[in-house]
Amino acid sequence: MSRPPSYGAPITLDEAARVMAAAQAEARRNDWPMAIAIVGSGGHLVMLHALDDVQHASITVAQAKAATAVNFRRPSKLFEDAVRDGGLGLRLLGMDNLLPLDGGLPLYRDGKVAGAIGVSGMQSTQDAQVAATGATLMPV
Amino acid sequence: MSRPPSYGAPITLDEAARVMAAAQAEARRNDWPMAIAIVGSGGHLVMLHALDDVQHASITVAQAKAATAVNFRRPSKLFEDAVRDGGLGLRLLGMDNLLPLDGGLPLYRDGKVAGAIGVSGMQSTQDAQVAATGATLMPV
Amino acid sequence: MSRPPSYGAPITLDEAARVMAAAQAEARRNDWPMAIAIVGSGGHLVMLHALDDVQHASITVAQAKAATAVNFRRPSKLFEDAVRDGGLGLRLLGMDNLLPLDGGLPLYRDGKVAGAIGVSGMQSTQDAQVAATGATLMPV
Amino acid sequence: MSRPPSYGAPITLDEAARVMAAAQAEARRNDWPMAIAIVGSGGHLVMLHALDDVQHASITVAQAKAATAVNFRRPSKLFEDAVRDGGLGLRLLGMDNLLPLDGGLPLYRDGKVAGAIGVSGMQSTQDAQVAATGATLMPV
Repeated sequence: MSRPPSYGAPITLDEAARVMAAAQAEARRNDWPMAIAIVGSGGHLVMLHALDDVQHASITVAQAKAATAVNFRRPSKLFEDAVRDGGLGLRLLGMDNLLPLDGGLPLYRDGKVAGAIGVSGMQSTQDAQVAATGATLMPV
Repeated sequence: MSRPPSYGAPITLDEAARVMAAAQAEARRNDWPMAIAIVGSGGHLVMLHALDDVQHASITVAQAKAATAVNFRRPSKLFEDAVRDGGLGLRLLGMDNLLPLDGGLPLYRDGKVAGAIGVSGMQSTQDAQVAATGATLMPV
Repeated sequence: MSRPPSYGAPITLDEAARVMAAAQAEARRNDWPMAIAIVGSGGHLVMLHALDDVQHASITVAQAKAATAVNFRRPSKLFEDAVRDGGLGLRLLGMDNLLPLDGGLPLYRDGKVAGAIGVSGMQSTQDAQVAATGATLMPV
Repeated sequence: MSRPPSYGAPITLDEAARVMAAAQAEARRNDWPMAIAIVGSGGHLVMLHALDDVQHASITVAQAKAATAVNFRRPSKLFEDAVRDGGLGLRLLGMDNLLPLDGGLPLYRDGKVAGAIGVSGMQSTQDAQVAATGATLMPV
Protein backbone atom coordinates (compact mmCIF):
# COMPACT_ATOMS: atom_id res chain seq x y z
CA MET A 1 0.00 0.00 0.00
CA SER A 2 1.27 3.46 -0.81
CA ARG A 3 1.55 6.00 1.94
CA PRO A 4 -1.76 7.80 2.46
CA PRO A 5 -2.19 11.58 2.84
CA SER A 6 -1.45 13.12 6.23
CA TYR A 7 -4.12 14.20 8.68
CA GLY A 8 -5.20 17.85 8.43
CA ALA A 9 -7.60 19.99 10.40
CA PRO A 10 -10.95 18.30 11.07
CA ILE A 11 -13.96 18.79 8.84
CA THR A 12 -16.17 21.71 9.89
CA LEU A 13 -19.86 21.37 10.63
CA ASP A 14 -20.70 23.33 7.48
CA GLU A 15 -18.54 21.06 5.33
CA ALA A 16 -20.09 18.02 6.97
CA ALA A 17 -23.57 19.40 6.34
CA ARG A 18 -22.86 19.65 2.61
CA VAL A 19 -21.44 16.13 2.44
CA MET A 20 -24.37 14.82 4.47
CA ALA A 21 -26.95 16.59 2.27
CA ALA A 22 -25.52 15.01 -0.87
CA ALA A 23 -25.32 11.53 0.64
CA GLN A 24 -28.75 11.78 2.24
CA ALA A 25 -30.33 12.91 -1.03
CA GLU A 26 -28.83 9.90 -2.79
CA ALA A 27 -30.19 7.56 -0.13
CA ARG A 28 -33.65 9.12 -0.26
CA ARG A 29 -33.69 9.09 -4.06
CA ASN A 30 -33.29 5.32 -3.83
CA ASP A 31 -35.59 4.99 -0.85
CA TRP A 32 -32.81 3.31 1.14
CA PRO A 33 -33.15 3.46 4.95
CA MET A 34 -29.58 4.16 6.02
CA ALA A 35 -27.42 5.66 8.72
CA ILE A 36 -24.78 8.14 7.58
CA ALA A 37 -21.91 9.13 9.86
CA ILE A 38 -19.20 11.74 9.38
CA VAL A 39 -16.12 11.92 11.62
CA GLY A 40 -13.34 14.48 11.81
CA SER A 41 -9.64 13.83 11.25
CA GLY A 42 -9.18 12.92 14.91
CA GLY A 43 -11.86 10.25 14.64
CA HIS A 44 -14.50 12.11 16.63
CA LEU A 45 -18.10 12.08 15.41
CA VAL A 46 -19.11 15.38 13.77
CA MET A 47 -22.46 14.48 12.25
CA LEU A 48 -24.79 11.50 12.15
CA HIS A 49 -28.19 11.20 10.51
CA ALA A 50 -30.26 8.05 10.72
CA LEU A 51 -32.98 7.92 8.07
CA ASP A 52 -36.39 6.69 9.10
CA ASP A 53 -36.80 2.95 9.32
CA VAL A 54 -33.07 2.21 9.45
CA GLN A 55 -32.14 -0.97 11.28
CA HIS A 56 -30.53 -0.33 14.69
CA ALA A 57 -27.31 -2.09 13.79
CA SER A 58 -26.58 0.25 10.93
CA ILE A 59 -26.24 3.20 13.27
CA THR A 60 -23.16 1.71 14.88
CA VAL A 61 -21.89 0.11 11.69
CA ALA A 62 -21.92 3.45 9.86
CA GLN A 63 -19.76 4.90 12.62
CA ALA A 64 -17.40 1.92 12.50
CA LYS A 65 -16.96 2.29 8.75
CA ALA A 66 -16.17 5.98 9.10
CA ALA A 67 -13.75 5.20 11.93
CA THR A 68 -12.01 2.56 9.81
CA ALA A 69 -11.61 4.97 6.92
CA VAL A 70 -10.16 7.76 9.03
CA ASN A 71 -8.07 5.65 11.39
CA PHE A 72 -6.39 3.89 8.47
CA ARG A 73 -6.72 6.81 6.03
CA ARG A 74 -8.02 4.41 3.39
CA PRO A 75 -11.39 3.30 1.98
CA SER A 76 -12.81 0.47 4.05
CA LYS A 77 -13.25 -1.49 0.82
CA LEU A 78 -9.51 -2.22 0.75
CA PHE A 79 -9.99 -4.34 3.83
CA GLU A 80 -13.16 -5.96 2.51
CA ASP A 81 -11.22 -7.01 -0.59
CA ALA A 82 -8.36 -8.41 1.46
CA VAL A 83 -10.71 -10.55 3.53
CA ARG A 84 -12.56 -11.74 0.42
CA ASP A 85 -9.27 -12.87 -1.12
CA GLY A 86 -8.64 -15.14 1.85
CA GLY A 87 -5.25 -16.46 2.95
CA LEU A 88 -3.19 -13.78 4.60
CA GLY A 89 -6.06 -11.32 4.27
CA LEU A 90 -8.08 -13.23 6.84
CA ARG A 91 -5.84 -11.89 9.58
CA LEU A 92 -7.77 -8.62 9.34
CA LEU A 93 -10.70 -10.38 11.01
CA GLY A 94 -8.57 -10.48 14.13
CA MET A 95 -8.41 -6.69 14.38
CA ASP A 96 -11.07 -5.11 16.56
CA ASN A 97 -10.45 -1.53 15.39
CA LEU A 98 -11.21 -2.28 11.75
CA LEU A 99 -14.46 -3.04 9.96
CA PRO A 100 -13.79 -4.73 6.61
CA LEU A 101 -16.98 -3.56 4.90
CA ASP A 102 -17.35 -1.29 1.91
CA GLY A 103 -19.02 2.04 2.64
CA GLY A 104 -16.33 4.01 4.51
CA LEU A 105 -14.37 6.69 2.65
CA PRO A 106 -11.87 9.36 3.71
CA LEU A 107 -12.77 13.00 3.11
CA TYR A 108 -10.01 15.36 2.03
CA ARG A 109 -9.25 19.08 2.15
CA ASP A 110 -6.15 20.50 0.46
CA GLY A 111 -4.73 17.03 -0.01
CA LYS A 112 -5.00 16.08 3.64
CA VAL A 113 -7.44 13.81 5.45
CA ALA A 114 -10.14 16.01 7.03
CA GLY A 115 -12.35 13.14 8.15
CA ALA A 116 -14.38 10.28 6.77
CA ILE A 117 -17.91 9.24 5.89
CA GLY A 118 -19.46 5.88 6.72
CA VAL A 119 -22.78 4.55 5.45
CA SER A 120 -24.75 1.46 6.41
CA GLY A 121 -28.23 0.06 5.85
CA MET A 122 -28.35 -1.79 2.55
CA GLN A 123 -25.96 -3.96 0.56
CA SER A 124 -22.41 -2.73 1.07
CA THR A 125 -22.19 -1.72 -2.60
CA GLN A 126 -25.26 0.45 -2.11
CA ASP A 127 -23.82 1.83 1.11
CA ALA A 128 -20.68 2.64 -0.84
CA GLN A 129 -22.65 4.37 -3.57
CA VAL A 130 -24.15 6.74 -1.02
CA ALA A 131 -20.82 7.30 0.71
CA ALA A 132 -19.19 8.10 -2.62
CA THR A 133 -21.90 10.63 -3.45
CA GLY A 134 -20.96 12.49 -0.30
CA ALA A 135 -17.22 12.02 -0.66
CA THR A 136 -17.08 13.54 -4.13
CA LEU A 137 -17.54 16.91 -2.43
CA MET A 138 -14.22 16.51 -0.64
CA PRO A 139 -11.97 14.64 -3.06
CA VAL A 140 -8.31 13.86 -2.50
CA MET B 1 -41.35 9.66 41.15
CA SER B 2 -44.60 9.39 39.23
CA ARG B 3 -44.88 6.99 36.35
CA PRO B 4 -43.55 8.59 33.18
CA PRO B 5 -45.25 8.44 29.77
CA SER B 6 -44.92 5.26 27.76
CA TYR B 7 -42.61 4.82 24.84
CA GLY B 8 -44.09 5.57 21.43
CA ALA B 9 -42.76 5.37 17.92
CA PRO B 10 -39.28 6.84 17.53
CA ILE B 11 -38.70 10.40 16.43
CA THR B 12 -38.46 10.73 12.65
CA LEU B 13 -35.48 12.28 10.91
CA ASP B 14 -37.62 15.26 9.90
CA GLU B 15 -38.78 15.83 13.46
CA ALA B 16 -35.22 15.49 14.69
CA ALA B 17 -34.06 17.98 12.09
CA ARG B 18 -36.50 20.57 13.39
CA VAL B 19 -35.50 19.99 17.01
CA MET B 20 -31.83 20.13 16.01
CA ALA B 21 -32.28 23.34 14.03
CA ALA B 22 -33.85 25.10 17.00
CA ALA B 23 -31.22 23.89 19.44
CA GLN B 24 -28.35 24.60 17.08
CA ALA B 25 -29.61 28.13 16.43
CA GLU B 26 -29.73 28.78 20.17
CA ALA B 27 -26.16 27.50 20.57
CA ARG B 28 -24.89 29.59 17.68
CA ARG B 29 -26.74 32.69 18.89
CA ASN B 30 -24.71 32.41 22.10
CA ASP B 31 -21.51 31.35 20.31
CA TRP B 32 -21.38 28.17 22.39
CA PRO B 33 -19.33 25.28 20.91
CA MET B 34 -21.53 22.30 21.71
CA ALA B 35 -22.44 18.81 20.68
CA ILE B 36 -26.16 18.09 20.28
CA ALA B 37 -27.46 14.53 20.15
CA ILE B 38 -30.97 13.26 19.49
CA VAL B 39 -31.97 9.65 20.11
CA GLY B 40 -35.15 7.79 19.29
CA SER B 41 -37.48 6.05 21.71
CA GLY B 42 -35.37 2.89 21.47
CA GLY B 43 -32.28 4.79 22.58
CA HIS B 44 -30.59 4.67 19.21
CA LEU B 45 -28.86 7.75 17.87
CA VAL B 46 -30.93 9.52 15.20
CA MET B 47 -28.98 12.74 14.77
CA LEU B 48 -25.80 14.27 16.11
CA HIS B 49 -24.22 17.60 15.21
CA ALA B 50 -20.94 18.73 16.72
CA LEU B 51 -20.43 22.46 16.34
CA ASP B 52 -16.97 23.66 15.39
CA ASP B 53 -14.48 23.94 18.23
CA VAL B 54 -16.42 21.69 20.57
CA GLN B 55 -14.28 19.81 23.08
CA HIS B 56 -13.94 16.11 22.25
CA ALA B 57 -15.50 14.98 25.53
CA SER B 58 -18.78 16.74 24.80
CA ILE B 59 -19.47 14.51 21.82
CA THR B 60 -19.82 11.46 24.03
CA VAL B 61 -21.34 13.37 26.94
CA ALA B 62 -24.16 14.74 24.76
CA GLN B 63 -25.02 11.20 23.73
CA ALA B 64 -24.92 9.99 27.34
CA LYS B 65 -27.28 12.76 28.43
CA ALA B 66 -29.76 11.89 25.69
CA ALA B 67 -29.47 8.21 26.54
CA THR B 68 -30.13 8.96 30.21
CA ALA B 69 -33.23 11.00 29.39
CA VAL B 70 -34.75 8.38 27.12
CA ASN B 71 -33.70 5.32 29.08
CA PHE B 72 -35.28 6.68 32.26
CA ARG B 73 -37.95 8.76 30.49
CA ARG B 74 -37.03 11.72 32.68
CA PRO B 75 -34.86 14.85 32.44
CA SER B 76 -31.27 14.06 33.38
CA LYS B 77 -31.42 16.95 35.87
CA LEU B 78 -33.50 14.80 38.22
CA PHE B 79 -30.46 12.59 38.69
CA GLU B 80 -28.12 15.54 39.02
CA ASP B 81 -30.29 16.87 41.81
CA ALA B 82 -30.34 13.52 43.58
CA VAL B 83 -26.56 13.28 43.51
CA ARG B 84 -26.19 16.87 44.67
CA ASP B 85 -28.43 16.15 47.66
CA GLY B 86 -26.12 13.34 48.77
CA GLY B 87 -27.14 10.46 51.02
CA LEU B 88 -29.12 7.83 49.22
CA GLY B 89 -28.83 9.84 45.99
CA LEU B 90 -25.15 9.01 45.75
CA ARG B 91 -26.01 5.44 44.80
CA LEU B 92 -26.80 6.77 41.32
CA LEU B 93 -23.05 7.18 40.81
CA GLY B 94 -22.81 3.41 40.77
CA MET B 95 -24.99 3.14 37.68
CA ASP B 96 -23.10 3.06 34.44
CA ASN B 97 -26.15 3.64 32.22
CA LEU B 98 -26.95 7.00 33.76
CA LEU B 99 -25.22 10.39 33.53
CA PRO B 100 -26.37 12.70 36.32
CA LEU B 101 -25.83 15.96 34.42
CA ASP B 102 -28.39 18.53 33.38
CA GLY B 103 -28.84 18.87 29.62
CA GLY B 104 -30.79 15.74 28.69
CA LEU B 105 -34.55 16.00 28.05
CA PRO B 106 -37.19 13.58 26.72
CA LEU B 107 -39.01 14.48 23.52
CA TYR B 108 -42.70 13.63 23.24
CA ARG B 109 -45.31 13.01 20.57
CA ASP B 110 -48.97 12.50 21.43
CA GLY B 111 -48.14 12.08 25.09
CA LYS B 112 -45.60 9.33 24.54
CA VAL B 113 -41.81 9.38 24.63
CA ALA B 114 -40.50 9.64 21.07
CA GLY B 115 -36.87 10.17 22.01
CA ALA B 116 -34.58 12.59 23.81
CA ILE B 117 -32.12 15.38 23.24
CA GLY B 118 -28.74 15.74 24.98
CA VAL B 119 -26.46 18.77 24.85
CA SER B 120 -22.90 19.25 26.14
CA GLY B 121 -20.14 21.81 25.74
CA MET B 122 -20.61 24.61 28.26
CA GLN B 123 -21.90 24.86 31.83
CA SER B 124 -24.65 22.29 32.35
CA THR B 125 -27.21 25.08 32.85
CA GLN B 126 -26.25 26.45 29.43
CA ASP B 127 -26.37 22.96 27.97
CA ALA B 128 -29.85 22.63 29.46
CA GLN B 129 -30.94 25.94 27.96
CA VAL B 130 -30.06 24.71 24.48
CA ALA B 131 -31.68 21.32 25.08
CA ALA B 132 -34.87 23.02 26.26
CA THR B 133 -34.98 25.19 23.15
CA GLY B 134 -35.09 22.04 21.08
CA ALA B 135 -37.41 20.14 23.38
CA THR B 136 -40.12 22.81 23.31
CA LEU B 137 -40.91 21.60 19.80
CA MET B 138 -41.95 18.21 21.12
CA PRO B 139 -43.58 18.89 24.53
CA VAL B 140 -45.20 16.32 26.74
CA MET C 1 -15.69 28.17 33.27
CA SER C 2 -14.27 30.39 30.53
CA ARG C 3 -13.98 29.02 27.04
CA PRO C 4 -10.73 27.10 26.61
CA PRO C 5 -8.33 27.48 23.66
CA SER C 6 -9.18 25.64 20.42
CA TYR C 7 -7.52 22.45 19.30
CA GLY C 8 -4.51 22.87 17.01
CA ALA C 9 -2.23 20.43 15.23
CA PRO C 10 -1.08 17.54 17.42
CA ILE C 11 2.20 17.61 19.31
CA THR C 12 5.11 16.19 17.33
CA LEU C 13 7.29 13.36 18.56
CA ASP C 14 10.22 15.77 18.99
CA GLU C 15 8.11 18.15 21.07
CA ALA C 16 6.81 15.24 23.12
CA ALA C 17 10.37 14.02 23.67
CA ARG C 18 11.38 17.37 25.15
CA VAL C 19 8.33 17.49 27.43
CA MET C 20 8.94 13.89 28.46
CA ALA C 21 12.63 14.51 29.19
CA ALA C 22 11.82 17.38 31.51
CA ALA C 23 9.07 15.49 33.33
CA GLN C 24 11.09 12.31 33.56
CA ALA C 25 14.11 14.18 34.98
CA GLU C 26 11.89 15.69 37.67
CA ALA C 27 10.52 12.26 38.56
CA ARG C 28 13.98 10.73 38.72
CA ARG C 29 15.39 13.62 40.75
CA ASN C 30 12.78 12.78 43.39
CA ASP C 31 13.15 9.03 42.92
CA TRP C 32 9.43 8.72 42.16
CA PRO C 33 8.37 5.62 40.19
CA MET C 34 5.82 7.07 37.78
CA ALA C 35 4.17 6.63 34.42
CA ILE C 36 4.16 9.66 32.15
CA ALA C 37 1.82 9.82 29.14
CA ILE C 38 1.60 12.42 26.39
CA VAL C 39 -1.33 12.55 23.95
CA GLY C 40 -1.90 14.68 20.85
CA SER C 41 -4.74 17.12 20.28
CA GLY C 42 -6.94 14.32 18.91
CA GLY C 43 -6.48 12.33 22.10
CA HIS C 44 -4.21 9.69 20.58
CA LEU C 45 -1.20 8.49 22.58
CA VAL C 46 2.07 9.96 21.27
CA MET C 47 4.51 8.94 23.99
CA LEU C 48 4.46 6.93 27.17
CA HIS C 49 7.33 6.12 29.51
CA ALA C 50 6.89 3.98 32.61
CA LEU C 51 9.74 4.39 35.07
CA ASP C 52 11.08 1.29 36.73
CA ASP C 53 9.10 -0.02 39.65
CA VAL C 54 5.92 1.90 38.79
CA GLN C 55 2.69 0.27 39.94
CA HIS C 56 0.69 -1.25 37.07
CA ALA C 57 -2.35 0.92 37.72
CA SER C 58 -0.44 4.13 37.14
CA ILE C 59 0.19 3.23 33.53
CA THR C 60 -3.49 3.44 32.70
CA VAL C 61 -4.18 6.28 35.14
CA ALA C 62 -1.53 8.47 33.52
CA GLN C 63 -3.22 7.95 30.18
CA ALA C 64 -6.65 8.73 31.66
CA LYS C 65 -5.36 11.97 33.18
CA ALA C 66 -3.87 13.04 29.86
CA ALA C 67 -7.12 12.10 28.09
CA THR C 68 -9.15 14.13 30.58
CA ALA C 69 -6.94 17.20 30.09
CA VAL C 70 -7.12 17.07 26.31
CA ASN C 71 -10.73 15.99 25.95
CA PHE C 72 -11.92 18.81 28.21
CA ARG C 73 -9.06 21.19 27.34
CA ARG C 74 -8.57 21.89 31.04
CA PRO C 75 -6.29 20.72 33.86
CA SER C 76 -7.69 17.59 35.49
CA LYS C 77 -7.34 19.36 38.85
CA LEU C 78 -10.45 21.44 38.07
CA PHE C 79 -12.47 18.27 38.27
CA GLU C 80 -10.67 17.05 41.37
CA ASP C 81 -11.55 20.31 43.09
CA ALA C 82 -15.19 20.08 42.05
CA VAL C 83 -15.50 16.59 43.49
CA ARG C 84 -13.73 17.62 46.70
CA ASP C 85 -16.21 20.48 47.18
CA GLY C 86 -19.09 18.00 47.13
CA GLY C 87 -22.72 18.82 46.34
CA LEU C 88 -23.21 19.42 42.66
CA GLY C 89 -19.56 18.58 41.98
CA LEU C 90 -20.18 14.95 42.87
CA ARG C 91 -22.01 14.47 39.58
CA LEU C 92 -18.60 14.32 37.89
CA LEU C 93 -18.14 10.89 39.44
CA GLY C 94 -20.87 9.67 37.12
CA MET C 95 -18.84 10.51 34.02
CA ASP C 96 -16.80 7.65 32.64
CA ASN C 97 -14.72 9.78 30.27
CA LEU C 98 -13.29 11.96 33.01
CA LEU C 99 -10.74 11.24 35.73
CA PRO C 100 -11.01 13.82 38.52
CA LEU C 101 -7.40 13.51 39.69
CA ASP C 102 -4.69 16.16 39.63
CA GLY C 103 -1.79 15.41 37.30
CA GLY C 104 -3.23 16.02 33.82
CA LEU C 105 -2.37 19.26 32.02
CA PRO C 106 -3.00 20.54 28.48
CA LEU C 107 0.02 21.36 26.32
CA TYR C 108 -0.18 24.39 24.04
CA ARG C 109 1.42 25.62 20.86
CA ASP C 110 0.66 29.10 19.49
CA GLY C 111 -2.26 29.47 21.88
CA LYS C 112 -3.95 26.26 20.81
CA VAL C 113 -4.21 22.88 22.50
CA ALA C 114 -1.55 20.60 20.99
CA GLY C 115 -2.07 17.75 23.43
CA ALA C 116 -1.77 16.93 27.10
CA ILE C 117 0.48 15.28 29.66
CA GLY C 118 -0.70 12.92 32.38
CA VAL C 119 1.39 11.63 35.29
CA SER C 120 0.61 8.98 37.89
CA GLY C 121 2.50 7.02 40.53
CA MET C 122 2.71 9.05 43.73
CA GLN C 123 0.41 11.49 45.55
CA SER C 124 -1.59 13.46 43.03
CA THR C 125 0.19 16.67 44.09
CA GLN C 126 3.50 15.01 43.30
CA ASP C 127 2.09 13.70 40.02
CA ALA C 128 1.01 17.26 39.26
CA GLN C 129 4.46 18.61 40.06
CA VAL C 130 6.02 16.32 37.47
CA ALA C 131 3.32 17.08 34.91
CA ALA C 132 3.84 20.80 35.43
CA THR C 133 7.58 20.46 34.90
CA GLY C 134 6.85 19.02 31.47
CA ALA C 135 4.00 21.39 30.66
CA THR C 136 6.09 24.51 31.26
CA LEU C 137 7.79 23.75 27.95
CA MET C 138 4.50 24.22 26.08
CA PRO C 139 2.66 26.99 27.97
CA VAL C 140 -0.63 28.53 26.94
CA MET D 1 4.76 -25.63 19.51
CA SER D 2 7.61 -26.13 21.94
CA ARG D 3 7.43 -24.68 25.40
CA PRO D 4 8.54 -21.06 25.34
CA PRO D 5 10.93 -19.46 27.86
CA SER D 6 9.54 -18.47 31.25
CA TYR D 7 8.68 -14.96 32.25
CA GLY D 8 11.45 -13.05 34.00
CA ALA D 9 11.66 -9.60 35.49
CA PRO D 10 10.17 -6.88 33.29
CA ILE D 11 12.27 -4.84 30.92
CA THR D 12 13.67 -1.70 32.52
CA LEU D 13 13.07 1.77 31.13
CA ASP D 14 16.75 2.01 30.17
CA GLU D 15 16.60 -1.29 28.29
CA ALA D 16 13.38 -0.22 26.61
CA ALA D 17 14.98 3.08 25.61
CA ARG D 18 17.79 1.24 23.84
CA VAL D 19 15.39 -1.08 22.02
CA MET D 20 13.19 1.88 21.10
CA ALA D 21 16.14 3.91 19.82
CA ALA D 22 17.22 1.11 17.50
CA ALA D 23 13.72 0.49 16.18
CA GLN D 24 12.93 4.17 15.83
CA ALA D 25 16.15 4.78 13.90
CA GLU D 26 15.25 1.98 11.49
CA ALA D 27 11.79 3.47 10.96
CA ARG D 28 13.17 6.95 10.40
CA ARG D 29 15.89 5.66 8.05
CA ASN D 30 13.08 4.31 5.85
CA ASP D 31 10.82 7.32 6.42
CA TRP D 32 8.09 5.04 7.75
CA PRO D 33 5.46 6.68 9.99
CA MET D 34 4.98 4.08 12.69
CA ALA D 35 3.96 3.49 16.25
CA ILE D 36 6.35 1.43 18.38
CA ALA D 37 5.24 -0.08 21.66
CA ILE D 38 7.25 -1.94 24.28
CA VAL D 39 5.61 -3.88 27.10
CA GLY D 40 7.12 -5.58 30.12
CA SER D 41 6.87 -9.24 31.06
CA GLY D 42 3.58 -8.58 32.85
CA GLY D 43 2.09 -7.17 29.67
CA HIS D 44 2.03 -3.58 30.91
CA LEU D 45 3.09 -0.77 28.60
CA VAL D 46 6.60 0.48 29.38
CA MET D 47 7.25 2.73 26.40
CA LEU D 48 5.37 3.94 23.36
CA HIS D 49 6.53 6.36 20.69
CA ALA D 50 4.27 7.41 17.81
CA LEU D 51 6.25 8.90 14.95
CA ASP D 52 4.82 11.97 13.26
CA ASP D 53 2.16 11.29 10.65
CA VAL D 54 1.35 7.80 11.88
CA GLN D 55 -2.22 6.68 11.23
CA HIS D 56 -4.34 6.62 14.39
CA ALA D 57 -5.09 2.92 14.12
CA SER D 58 -1.42 1.96 14.36
CA ILE D 59 -1.13 3.32 17.88
CA THR D 60 -3.49 0.68 19.20
CA VAL D 61 -2.34 -2.00 16.78
CA ALA D 62 1.30 -1.66 17.90
CA GLN D 63 0.21 -2.23 21.48
CA ALA D 64 -1.90 -5.23 20.49
CA LYS D 65 1.04 -6.81 18.65
CA ALA D 66 3.32 -6.35 21.65
CA ALA D 67 0.62 -7.74 23.93
CA THR D 68 0.21 -10.77 21.68
CA ALA D 69 3.94 -11.47 21.69
CA VAL D 70 4.32 -11.26 25.45
CA ASN D 71 1.04 -12.90 26.40
CA PHE D 72 1.83 -15.93 24.26
CA ARG D 73 5.63 -15.65 24.54
CA ARG D 74 5.90 -16.08 20.80
CA PRO D 75 6.26 -13.85 17.73
CA SER D 76 2.88 -12.66 16.52
CA LYS D 77 3.79 -13.96 13.06
CA LEU D 78 3.14 -17.54 14.24
CA PHE D 79 -0.51 -16.65 14.59
CA GLU D 80 -0.59 -14.80 11.29
CA ASP D 81 0.76 -17.91 9.59
CA ALA D 82 -1.83 -20.12 11.27
CA VAL D 83 -4.68 -17.90 10.11
CA ARG D 84 -3.26 -17.71 6.60
CA ASP D 85 -3.14 -21.51 6.42
CA GLY D 86 -6.86 -21.71 7.16
CA GLY D 87 -8.63 -24.75 8.61
CA LEU D 88 -8.10 -25.12 12.31
CA GLY D 89 -5.94 -21.99 12.32
CA LEU D 90 -9.00 -19.85 11.73
CA ARG D 91 -10.13 -20.47 15.28
CA LEU D 92 -7.52 -17.93 16.36
CA LEU D 93 -9.81 -15.22 14.93
CA GLY D 94 -12.19 -15.98 17.77
CA MET D 95 -9.63 -14.94 20.38
CA ASP D 96 -9.85 -11.33 21.45
CA ASN D 97 -6.51 -11.26 23.28
CA LEU D 98 -4.52 -12.14 20.17
CA LEU D 99 -3.69 -10.11 17.07
CA PRO D 100 -2.53 -12.37 14.22
CA LEU D 101 -0.32 -9.80 12.53
CA ASP D 102 3.42 -9.87 12.01
CA GLY D 103 5.32 -7.18 13.88
CA GLY D 104 5.22 -8.36 17.51
CA LEU D 105 8.31 -10.00 19.03
CA PRO D 106 9.28 -11.11 22.54
CA LEU D 107 12.28 -9.50 24.19
CA TYR D 108 14.54 -11.67 26.34
CA ARG D 109 17.02 -11.27 29.17
CA ASP D 110 19.04 -14.23 30.48
CA GLY D 111 16.85 -16.67 28.57
CA LYS D 112 13.62 -15.40 30.04
CA VAL D 113 10.89 -13.24 28.56
CA ALA D 114 11.41 -9.65 29.73
CA GLY D 115 8.77 -8.12 27.51
CA ALA D 116 7.88 -7.57 23.87
CA ILE D 117 7.96 -5.01 21.10
CA GLY D 118 5.11 -4.29 18.69
CA VAL D 119 5.30 -2.12 15.58
CA SER D 120 2.56 -0.89 13.23
CA GLY D 121 2.20 1.65 10.45
CA MET D 122 3.29 0.09 7.15
CA GLN D 123 3.05 -3.36 5.58
CA SER D 124 3.32 -5.97 8.28
CA THR D 125 6.64 -7.20 6.83
CA GLN D 126 8.00 -3.69 7.20
CA ASP D 127 6.55 -3.46 10.69
CA ALA D 128 8.33 -6.74 11.45
CA GLN D 129 11.63 -5.43 10.08
CA VAL D 130 11.52 -2.52 12.53
CA ALA D 131 10.47 -4.74 15.42
CA ALA D 132 13.34 -7.12 14.66
CA THR D 133 15.85 -4.27 14.64
CA GLY D 134 14.81 -3.50 18.18
CA ALA D 135 14.53 -7.09 19.31
CA THR D 136 18.08 -7.99 18.29
CA LEU D 137 19.23 -6.03 21.34
CA MET D 138 17.48 -8.50 23.64
CA PRO D 139 17.79 -11.90 21.94
CA VAL D 140 16.65 -15.20 23.36
